[in-house]
Amino acid sequence: MPILVVGSIALDSIKTSSAEITDCLGGSAVFFSLSASFFSPVNIVAVVGKDFPQKHIDFLQSRKNIDLEGLEIKEGKTFRWKASYACDINNPQTLDTQLNVFAEFRPFIPESYKKNDYLFLANIDPDLQYSILSQIPGPKVIACDSMNYWIKTKPEPLKRLLKKVDIYFVNDSEARLLTGQDNLLKAAKEIINLGPEIVIIKKGEHGVLFSSRTHPSFIVPAYLLEDVIDPTGAGDTFAGGFMGYLSSQGRLNSNILRKAVVYGTIMASFSVESFSVERLAGLRKQDIRKRYDEFVKLTKF
Amino acid sequence: MPILVVGSIALDSIKTSSAEITDCLGGSAVFFSLSASFFSPVNIVAVVGKDFPQKHIDFLQSRKNIDLEGLEIKEGKTFRWKASYACDINNPQTLDTQLNVFAEFRPFIPESYKKNDYLFLANIDPDLQYSILSQIPGPKVIACDSMNYWIKTKPEPLKRLLKKVDIYFVNDSEARLLTGQDNLLKAAKEIINLGPEIVIIKKGEHGVLFSSRTHPSFIVPAYLLEDVIDPTGAGDTFAGGFMGYLSSQGRLNSNILRKAVVYGTIMASFSVESFSVERLAGLRKQDIRKRYDEFVKLTKF
Repeated sequence: MPILVVGSIALDSIKTSSAEITDCLGGSAVFFSLSASFFSPVNIVAVVGKDFPQKHIDFLQSRKNIDLEGLEIKEGKTFRWKASYACDINNPQTLDTQLNVFAEFRPFIPESYKKNDYLFLANIDPDLQYSILSQIPGPKVIACDSMNYWIKTKPEPLKRLLKKVDIYFVNDSEARLLTGQDNLLKAAKEIINLGPEIVIIKKGEHGVLFSSRTHPSFIVPAYLLEDVIDPTGAGDTFAGGFMGYLSSQGRLNSNILRKAVVYGTIMASFSVESFSVERLAGLRKQDIRKRYDEFVKLTKF
Repeated sequence: MPILVVGSIALDSIKTSSAEITDCLGGSAVFFSLSASFFSPVNIVAVVGKDFPQKHIDFLQSRKNIDLEGLEIKEGKTFRWKASYACDINNPQTLDTQLNVFAEFRPFIPESYKKNDYLFLANIDPDLQYSILSQIPGPKVIACDSMNYWIKTKPEPLKRLLKKVDIYFVNDSEARLLTGQDNLLKAAKEIINLGPEIVIIKKGEHGVLFSSRTHPSFIVPAYLLEDVIDPTGAGDTFAGGFMGYLSSQGRLNSNILRKAVVYGTIMASFSVESFSVERLAGLRKQDIRKRYDEFVKLTKF
């Protein structure tokens, strides 16, 4: 079943301790869609500027499961993000953010997308995320992401959104910031009390904690890699693998949810192996199956 | 099969954000033995001063699987360690260390212990750890622990020891310090090149990475708790659960090693639920079985 994703498409400039790239394809909607498209069709609602390279549009359009009817190309420049991982591969230092056309993003959902049963609201202003819900009659599964900036500046709109959401993807520091709880189990409980049926706390290289009102908790380590090149987009790639697998199953039970967490983990592990979407772009389904099997072997007891 | 442990017995004074205790039972040999004794007999070689409370000796002696023939009671005061977790529950700030009789500790292995097939060299001077090996004809499995202090001040004696060791327990920051590798998979490989057949990197609340020259790698998350009271001794309790289970099986294969890691994880999760050895002292075998089963449910997919 198709997934509707509303999020950003960006041109990222990334610096690490060993290399640097400029204006490469990035943004939450891009990482999410590429990842999810290995499992399910994905419909993108996003905005770019007139300067957005045609080659990126061609690339996205060439992907079997990705639909761009909801991509708006606007007068002006594309959203740009510049960051450095030179000091800490796990925590980017933002050097520059130019919202450009993304500042005026008013997501418009094409008619053909309105019957999508799976919705992922990537990290944008929680008021905008909320406004999307009124445009579509009622997806079966609503998932969202956010970030520390919105938790700090718009806690009430975010909490209003969380009341409507089924699945909330959040990283450990954001979960602590949102709840004031240092302990992640307590933080997860508090978040569930805010509304979501499921909260997925991402701990980066330390794996994931899955908590739910009705499904048993699940803890899973990250797939360990010897070389992490660029963690940009890992969280959205995780969400893409999770939502993609979920919608490919068409139903939701504890076993499927656990496998979705593992597929999210596997997809994120590929994403960080290259700059931008390079690794995801070259990925084949058998690579995913192989790493999934390796992960089973790594964790079974 | 009995395990011989050589390590410290201490009187710990611990401060956390909510409570403080003074001169309570602690030390690597104590946490290790209590934990291992749920699975196998344990023989302790350690030293205390004349001031060491008789009630602690009585307590240890009352434990079914613990033998104290190798406990030396010496003129002088017992090793004392004072630390605070008030700022960070995962990283103690040492406030005071009084080695006292522990400074002159020259481990003497009683004749009856010399045939023990399993040996755990808890964290002491690597030269002393090495000297113990010449006192016993040849245990089947030699495991050791160390700490950042010895890695910094005695790297060569430690490396000499690691050549003789089968299993090395090390935490993540120590593994990075010893190898200069930030990436834990690379660090594990380098440590195995130093000698040990198996290296177990403990990441505290983030679980464990098991690496080996011949057995497949194994990654496992920590058992998550809502309330961590005092993490003192968690590493030695982990090693106790691991070694205890291993020696209870009498043989060593990949499945047994993985289960040993999980039992170590489970035992450590109990230890941190109280100050000192309170939780371990009150623990029953069925509590361990129950939490093991819970852990299976928490991690299965």
